[in-house]
Amino acid sequence: MKKFIVGVMGPGRTATPETVALAKETGRLIGLENWAVLTGGRNEGVMDAACQGAKESGGLTIGIIPNKDPGYVSSAVDIPVYTDVGLARNNINVLSSDIVIAISSGTSLGTSSEVALALNHDKDVIFLNPGQKCFDFFSELKPDRVFLAKSPLDTIEIIKQRQDNQSFLRGATHPQN
Amino acid sequence: MKKFIVGVMGPGRTATPETVALAKETGRLIGLENWAVLTGGRNEGVMDAACQGAKESGGLTIGIIPNKDPGYVSSAVDIPVYTDVGLARNNINVLSSDIVIAISSGTSLGTSSEVALALNHDKDVIFLNPGQKCFDFFSELKPDRVFLAKSPLDTIEIIKQRQDNQSFLRGATHPQN
Amino acid sequence: MKKFIVGVMGPGRTATPETVALAKETGRLIGLENWAVLTGGRNEGVMDAACQGAKESGGLTIGIIPNKDPGYVSSAVDIPVYTDVGLARNNINVLSSDIVIAISSGTSLGTSSEVALALNHDKDVIFLNPGQKCFDFFSELKPDRVFLAKSPLDTIEIIKQRQDNQSFLRGATHPQN
Amino acid sequence: MKKFIVGVMGPGRTATPETVALAKETGRLIGLENWAVLTGGRNEGVMDAACQGAKESGGLTIGIIPNKDPGYVSSAVDIPVYTDVGLARNNINVLSSDIVIAISSGTSLGTSSEVALALNHDKDVIFLNPGQKCFDFFSELKPDRVFLAKSPLDTIEIIKQRQDNQSFLRGATHPQN
Repeated sequence: MKKFIVGVMGPGRTATPETVALAKETGRLIGLENWAVLTGGRNEGVMDAACQGAKESGGLTIGIIPNKDPGYVSSAVDIPVYTDVGLARNNINVLSSDIVIAISSGTSLGTSSEVALALNHDKDVIFLNPGQKCFDFFSELKPDRVFLAKSPLDTIEIIKQRQDNQSFLRGATHPQN
Repeated sequence: MKKFIVGVMGPGRTATPETVALAKETGRLIGLENWAVLTGGRNEGVMDAACQGAKESGGLTIGIIPNKDPGYVSSAVDIPVYTDVGLARNNINVLSSDIVIAISSGTSLGTSSEVALALNHDKDVIFLNPGQKCFDFFSELKPDRVFLAKSPLDTIEIIKQRQDNQSFLRGATHPQN
Repeated sequence: MKKFIVGVMGPGRTATPETVALAKETGRLIGLENWAVLTGGRNEGVMDAACQGAKESGGLTIGIIPNKDPGYVSSAVDIPVYTDVGLARNNINVLSSDIVIAISSGTSLGTSSEVALALNHDKDVIFLNPGQKCFDFFSELKPDRVFLAKSPLDTIEIIKQRQDNQSFLRGATHPQN
Repeated sequence: MKKFIVGVMGPGRTATPETVALAKETGRLIGLENWAVLTGGRNEGVMDAACQGAKESGGLTIGIIPNKDPGYVSSAVDIPVYTDVGLARNNINVLSSDIVIAISSGTSLGTSSEVALALNHDKDVIFLNPGQKCFDFFSELKPDRVFLAKSPLDTIEIIKQRQDNQSFLRGATHPQN
């Protein structure tokens, strides 16, 4: 049975302690809902923190790894997918997420590329703690797919509202089936 | 905790009923071991059958999808990874598998490319029902990584022997950790 | 002998006539310098116009195609590279360009993903006719790699200045050689 | 105007002097026809030799690079395309070649994956000096697309015969245009 998969994107080694804390709490809340967490899979920043949080609450974690080196992978990843396609894996991240949460996107070029690709594929993107210029830019480009959350708990509320509006986001089924 | 992931590769819509039956039984036995099954994820042939078998015994199933279209995905896939990289996803299939089982590889060019890539990455490949010319070719090129199984149950035995020989194949940990 | 390769990125079918005219003139000027033009290769918008312009002045044109379908390729592309990796090809576009020109990037999510990836790889990006919010966002994130051109001719001037500052941009050699 | 592009695939650092000589002469003859040579682009084995040969006769050379590191690129490559997708670039190699020549494929797993992918995409593959088991395997799987050349000159003759039979192989146009 298909899992409902929430992508959590954000900076790696440049993440601040505040950003790491937001990612960990977001991951924990996603795990509580019995949804899967998908990240870029590396052992740093938002990627690691969201997976660690999800494991605290028993969630399943998927890491989409840019290289083929297990030494880079977060210890909290259950399913590492070794793409070895470098930053091209950012496109796989967003395509494989039913919905995307972008944490502190305004300080990360990698996260910005993921937001741009997600919106290009008509995915919903929930911003948590974006920079002002980042949010202004993307919300002007694709206003109907951009959401602003006040807190990790608020990201969960927004996801549930979106699921009510879009049947394919209720999870547990493949969209077309 | 990292899952131990067994890749099951083989023909899609050209698979014979015998090949489909082998794939389903192999998937079922992998699920019984509480290992994850990874396939190319599509709703036909070995990909679908191995996932269906794994779900019968409660296994977790991962599908590495060549496009971004949920309509192509096996209903028995828990975690669809939408790569949208076409046949380049064959490299992701084998990189993300701790060990590879190739079923009826002698009749499928796609499976042959996966075998070549897996051996190139120094992965173990267990052949089940290969064509003679296929097996002759690959076993000459990389004899120490090629294994021939007599049955689905035999593939499980070979995997356990390889785990005894190679600590990183005991699963449940990331190789380097 | 390695060609000096200028990437020209911008919107496809949503490009305005003004944007198309800027792209065509930019391509023509690049061809005059005997540099190669690299684009996303499709038969519309900035991709097509930059290649058409380059052919007017005898330049060589490279198209990095997202699919494997020749029917989508600009007739002005000399070297089509069929990646079949979808939007993941945006990363190949910027990695294969010695320098990147982004035309009318503020209206295109695809172009925005290319700008983010280019800056992430520490490539110079010259903006021509960006939206204000787009330029504000990226110039804050990576000020030392972002340049603003007033006209197609100005993009050529900026490239020459950058070549004076960075020996590997003088072209005609592989960077490390 | 689209160039006619001939892919030359074969082993890298494991190439024997005989294989290197075959690749260089093949590249030289392709350049004489004013066709472009496409290889995996690295500075060793068949990839390097075919490009060096093509430059001797004034041909254009394209290298599809697996990583993003210019230090790995053959000095005889005019157009390096930095894919950074690892061995997934093998699929790009064959998709971007109008026809494929595989030299000494029987000793190389990478080349074998390219042959399998090329035949899977219904590309013609001309074998030069294959191992017997390699040729037996692939010619049984896809007999109508597999050709055996006796010499570099013979590969050119076979290409011209195929162009006579298949209009889209006459080059100088995009297939569908």
